Amino acid sequence: MYRPATADQLLALEVCAGIGELAQSERFAAAEPDMVAAIVEGIGAFATGEWAPLNRVGDVEGARLENGVVRLPDGFAEAYAHYVEQGWNAIAAPADFGGQGLPFALGCNVLENLGTANFAFNLLPMLTTGAIDALEHHGSEDQKALYLPKMISGEWSGTMNLTEPQAGSDLGALRTAATPIEDGEHAGKYRIAGTKIYITWGEHELADNVIHLVLARLPDAPEGSRGISLFVVPKYRVKPDGSLGPRNDVKCVSLEHKLGINASPTCVMSYGDSGDCIGELVGAPNRGLMAMFTMMNNARINVGNQGVQIGERATQAALAYALDRVQSARAGSPDKSPVAIAEHPDVRRMLLRMKALTEGARALLYYTAGQVDRGTLGDAAAAARAECLVPMLKAWGTDVGVEIASLGVQVHGGMGFVEETGAAQHYRDARIAPIYEGTNGIQAADLVTRKLGLDGGAALDALLADVERDSDGALADLARTCREIARWMREEASLDDRLSGSVPFTAMCAVAVAGWQLSRQARAVADGAAPSLAESKPVTARFFATRIVPEALGLAASARGSADLLYAVPAAALAG
Amino acid sequence: MYRPATADQLLALEVCAGIGELAQSERFAAAEPDMVAAIVEGIGAFATGEWAPLNRVGDVEGARLENGVVRLPDGFAEAYAHYVEQGWNAIAAPADFGGQGLPFALGCNVLENLGTANFAFNLLPMLTTGAIDALEHHGSEDQKALYLPKMISGEWSGTMNLTEPQAGSDLGALRTAATPIEDGEHAGKYRIAGTKIYITWGEHELADNVIHLVLARLPDAPEGSRGISLFVVPKYRVKPDGSLGPRNDVKCVSLEHKLGINASPTCVMSYGDSGDCIGELVGAPNRGLMAMFTMMNNARINVGNQGVQIGERATQAALAYALDRVQSARAGSPDKSPVAIAEHPDVRRMLLRMKALTEGARALLYYTAGQVDRGTLGDAAAAARAECLVPMLKAWGTDVGVEIASLGVQVHGGMGFVEETGAAQHYRDARIAPIYEGTNGIQAADLVTRKLGLDGGAALDALLADVERDSDGALADLARTCREIARWMREEASLDDRLSGSVPFTAMCAVAVAGWQLSRQARAVADGAAPSLAESKPVTARFFATRIVPEALGLAASARGSADLLYAVPAAALAG
Repeated sequence: MYRPATADQLLALEVCAGIGELAQSERFAAAEPDMVAAIVEGIGAFATGEWAPLNRVGDVEGARLENGVVRLPDGFAEAYAHYVEQGWNAIAAPADFGGQGLPFALGCNVLENLGTANFAFNLLPMLTTGAIDALEHHGSEDQKALYLPKMISGEWSGTMNLTEPQAGSDLGALRTAATPIEDGEHAGKYRIAGTKIYITWGEHELADNVIHLVLARLPDAPEGSRGISLFVVPKYRVKPDGSLGPRNDVKCVSLEHKLGINASPTCVMSYGDSGDCIGELVGAPNRGLMAMFTMMNNARINVGNQGVQIGERATQAALAYALDRVQSARAGSPDKSPVAIAEHPDVRRMLLRMKALTEGARALLYYTAGQVDRGTLGDAAAAARAECLVPMLKAWGTDVGVEIASLGVQVHGGMGFVEETGAAQHYRDARIAPIYEGTNGIQAADLVTRKLGLDGGAALDALLADVERDSDGALADLARTCREIARWMREEASLDDRLSGSVPFTAMCAVAVAGWQLSRQARAVADGAAPSLAESKPVTARFFATRIVPEALGLAASARGSADLLYAVPAAALAG
Repeated sequence: MYRPATADQLLALEVCAGIGELAQSERFAAAEPDMVAAIVEGIGAFATGEWAPLNRVGDVEGARLENGVVRLPDGFAEAYAHYVEQGWNAIAAPADFGGQGLPFALGCNVLENLGTANFAFNLLPMLTTGAIDALEHHGSEDQKALYLPKMISGEWSGTMNLTEPQAGSDLGALRTAATPIEDGEHAGKYRIAGTKIYITWGEHELADNVIHLVLARLPDAPEGSRGISLFVVPKYRVKPDGSLGPRNDVKCVSLEHKLGINASPTCVMSYGDSGDCIGELVGAPNRGLMAMFTMMNNARINVGNQGVQIGERATQAALAYALDRVQSARAGSPDKSPVAIAEHPDVRRMLLRMKALTEGARALLYYTAGQVDRGTLGDAAAAARAECLVPMLKAWGTDVGVEIASLGVQVHGGMGFVEETGAAQHYRDARIAPIYEGTNGIQAADLVTRKLGLDGGAALDALLADVERDSDGALADLARTCREIARWMREEASLDDRLSGSVPFTAMCAVAVAGWQLSRQARAVADGAAPSLAESKPVTARFFATRIVPEALGLAASARGSADLLYAVPAAALAG
């Protein structure tokens, strides 16, 4: 049975997010230790008790579309209602609209626990969080007052509508249209018309309303990404007093048949089929993509978080299986009795690798979240550092999630390939995270273009210099190598060279920071923090430093290999 | 649409298997160039035309159990019948019983083409091949005469029955019982009783009979692996004249619900439910495991081959998608028109990586097969070299298959996570190969225990020395590092140390040999071989040498890390 990783989460909040320091600020004063512990333990218990039991039925039965209504398996509605009732949705939301106003790092913890319990279900609050972010930063006062309180409580959920069939990574290509309404009841609003795909939790009955944030084009908008505006389009129109009006002209026309996250309805949404889909502009015209960027950093952290979630769940499942499954005697042992497979060296290696990667990703997650919170408090250097960390966490964290889930299947042997054990579900679920919210290739491109040049390169360099200064051995080598490659990228490499090496470079940087944060955790534990981790943390930190870090050094040749090789022949020549 | 990799297969047969040299021998004299080309082109065309179109329906509909009968989707029976009619099953089978007697390397090519076309369907001939091997080497003359001709033609298929619920990797724990029949019609034969799991193609109607090879215990057998005997148990009893008698008391009682290979029925087989399952002993009593070992090398090569198969198929799918999908302009280009995503640097990197890994795995496959064939011709050094290569190919080849399939999903972006594209099927199908026919951990253990010591260590060292001598740069470094680690393992490391480093060490060795063989191919192409690969081969070989090889060097710390770290805390402490 799955158990929340409470002790390791608290350690990461303390050491990596520096939650104690955050609580010194007026804004986050409520985040004192008792409150933090109560939240982490509370959401862990809630998620384990109410959401985890729905993980398998969610996979097997999945979300279903029946006459335009999305149905979830029995239990989801109650589990969501309890989540709302207990106030978990509001933890890190703005206090002005009913939120608790606690640090983002604690919001990450809520999502971590929910997603470890039920990866697909967690996408519902995760998407709502993104929509809250966008409205909070770009909505009018009226819009905020109208929508935010119920979205923050969780009574209403939110979605992000970006992708269209011809506009995936390239949002500039989108065609959904918004036409101003000149007069009548909806004067000043817009008629929305178009089709959006891959809309996560785009339609469902768990919340009373679904607030869609939709990217669309005004009639006179410039071509490309400079002509995109953001609109809020509720499933049920909202009256000025906040009560629900009639159904808006928006519907889910089909669900994707996917590899995983079957309990998360991935909708094709049709807006304005009857010419009567009413939306309101959010922010300035043609500034929709900017509004998206505001929330994108946090959304990407939330996806990186999913790597931690699937890693934790897969690791626990593999450990439980390996401690239970008895097979063969230890090689070379005089005792010929069969032992639990966790005793065999290579199984033990896989388990330790899974655990070290999970803890490393978690350390990176909370370190990143802590920098976001410092940025919120006005620390510009921390904000820039967070910008650098986000693509590392999203790309490496989710790649590591896939690797851990795959190792989890392997530890289970033949049973791992059979769906009943759940190991296969993790392997399927994990695979989405490197793709959505900007593919990992796009994350890496972000690191080696915009983030590499932040503060003239000082933001990234200062981060890596901190790692180098605070480390020795392979970890110091890795940080130094990353700095050298970053310098080469800034000063010598062509844009193509940078992009060609971007993914391996991003992984190297992520491993450097994660290894650093794990070593800081190990030192804290040696000093008495988290006594329940006194045995395991030194081992996972050392495994990371002596096995994972040298592997990352092996990526250096790819990170600074030139692009010439990639373009030596036309792509069609590769197709034979 | 999938196309067979005919040119690269012919190059690998020529350069890596050395098929021309094999054809100099009397035994393989028929393998002259025209015949080789006819086979490679013929099976490629057959598999593409008749088996590939069934790949998706096989996944979606899968094998189904109806009243004890396994049903496959429409088309499978005809496609198998045509395969048999055209004689493809007999290519590398022994000439004494109707086979063509051609080199094993050509048998590998038949399986490669079938499995690339239809990964799950290919398991049917693949398992038959294993059963033929076992009977050929251990059956009596009567048994061979009775069973082999129809198994070689493919009219009858074969299965391997090893695993039981309590006996997976540890076959010594199996309990299926074989009781001698003293008198009556079946005197001299045995009554078999027990349950076997994970029996691939254990029941189906595509062949007229299914010949089960079953590991079981005689009444007085010693405990453990020294008390296991091999039995042949036909689904329909075979009369002395070769005609089919009544149904034997063996049935499929359920099919596993699996992550992938849905068209391959994975059966729970029940033997002797009515006390009337008749089998014959194959080989000497209590020597069943030895008989298994005979065929295991080739069976493991055939599974390593599956990494090549899924790699080729996933790479072709990703290339086709990336050449077709237009999204975003090239970064930094003055031309702002969107381009095919294959033009973007990181997509190009993924495509080249997929192709380089696939070609590297194929080069290793045919090099290994060629060494097997040399061993068959009496070259003891080649036979020992093949023994060393088998675990490398099986472990690394199948791990690489999973990696390539995962990259294939990534190249497809959101479409990759949707089942309709087929990229997700490859990701699911690929995951079985690191598990069955001895998990990759077991392969690696085999390399660092039995294979490491072959000829006092000379077999492995001579292989790596050949790589080192024939290489420069990172590849020479890698071969030298592998030799040093091998020496350390033989002379200094404890058994636990060796096993702890076994998986990374196996990958390092595999990359060294694959990189070597790819560079040999590139030189041959430079000298005029395979003109259609003149553009691409130098690039994939160089990508492998300059990107994949340095990564493998990064595994050195793990390969020679001590086991102490793994056992620093009890496994239960990792579970928190």
